[in-house]
Amino acid sequence: MGVLKAKVHVTLKPGVLDPQGKAVQHSLAALGFGGVEQVRQGKYIEVDLADGSSREQARAALDAMCRQLLANTVIEDYTIDIAE
Amino acid sequence: MGVLKAKVHVTLKPGVLDPQGKAVQHSLAALGFGGVEQVRQGKYIEVDLADGSSREQARAALDAMCRQLLANTVIEDYTIDIAE
Repeated sequence: MGVLKAKVHVTLKPGVLDPQGKAVQHSLAALGFGGVEQVRQGKYIEVDLADGSSREQARAALDAMCRQLLANTVIEDYTIDIAE
Repeated sequence: MGVLKAKVHVTLKPGVLDPQGKAVQHSLAALGFGGVEQVRQGKYIEVDLADGSSREQARAALDAMCRQLLANTVIEDYTIDIAE
């Protein structure tokens, strides 16, 4: 039994304000890093699934996980990558 | 003037406990998602840099940003990807 490893990225939709990213951007400027035009912060979630289902089933399950728990789809987008 | 877009992933080192990931894993189980063997949660940060420097300079700057602010290198690893 192997494990299906999925990588999920949850990011704020374009246009949604990102105060956390702004705070990081200001902190970088305060530390002397110039030329930082924008910082956007999202979540990166690694999900290991028992390899009992097909990749299509795994993708469907991950899609449901994102919609129900991992992402707030009103303000966030998500992407799912399934590795070997 | 273009913009260099960098994608930074900050993840907990292997072996470091991830209570946030555990909470997500338990919530997924409570929602009825079976077969989730592990969840690890990290940060995903998009940094846009003014395109006045070479990719090597940008990578060096991003490496310094990670060490000084974005990651806690005692417990976290980071990766830097620079797009066009």
